[in-house]
Amino acid sequence: MKELFLEDFAVGQRFISDTRALTAEEIKAFAASFDPQPFHTDEIAAKASFFRGLAASGWHTAAVTMSLLVKSGMPISGGLIGAGGEIEWPRAVRPGDVLQVESEVLAVAPSRSRPERGMITVKSVTKNLKGEVVQVLTSKMLVWKKGS
Amino acid sequence: MKELFLEDFAVGQRFISDTRALTAEEIKAFAASFDPQPFHTDEIAAKASFFRGLAASGWHTAAVTMSLLVKSGMPISGGLIGAGGEIEWPRAVRPGDVLQVESEVLAVAPSRSRPERGMITVKSVTKNLKGEVVQVLTSKMLVWKKGS
Repeated sequence: MKELFLEDFAVGQRFISDTRALTAEEIKAFAASFDPQPFHTDEIAAKASFFRGLAASGWHTAAVTMSLLVKSGMPISGGLIGAGGEIEWPRAVRPGDVLQVESEVLAVAPSRSRPERGMITVKSVTKNLKGEVVQVLTSKMLVWKKGS
Repeated sequence: MKELFLEDFAVGQRFISDTRALTAEEIKAFAASFDPQPFHTDEIAAKASFFRGLAASGWHTAAVTMSLLVKSGMPISGGLIGAGGEIEWPRAVRPGDVLQVESEVLAVAPSRSRPERGMITVKSVTKNLKGEVVQVLTSKMLVWKKGS
């Protein structure tokens, strides 16, 4: 993909990523390191939990979403550097789910103090192959101007 | 720690977690899986980047914060189940940084439709040992009432 600068972005632009599957083993390994709760680490215990079965940590969903954005989701020149954002997890990710990220540019704003850069606001919706939304992330990302 | 129910929470309560260090190897391994950009995966390339040195992915900081909250940060009965929130990364996490999370309850709200549960809003500030803030997360978490 061609790398994009601030001048290349416009409100309403859309990007769609490749896909990435999550296995039960990956869900449990991520959880063991970062979110060691029974509904993320043990199928049997998960059945009796709020999730009624093994579910990925929301932070795992966020991390997989980032990997899809970095590799195929949005080719920002210089890389994807986020300052933060809002995140929601309306539905759990389950073993075997295949995720894909659809992003839309909501705002493009040159910096007032730094003439060489700006910020874009991007809504990235992560879905499983049934089209069910598992995460909505609205993030602000640093973007450079051409020639900077 | 004693496990807490909705009735145990009040606005202004504070919790402080244990600490967790991030090594360069952990930063690069997380990034290889989830945020494969040179400033997260390669010390030399990182020096010439926006970050001027190896920096942890923001999602790695978020995941380590979650591990601290789960193990020592906030003992919610039934576990920490987040619906989403707002996240900011005002400063990069560097190899060797030791992180700790300070949480404060901002709101406690019984559910209108589900008498057995409610939500709490928690601001969790992740700092390094110099006291510099590397992440601010304001999240909504599901909490059960006693006897539910």
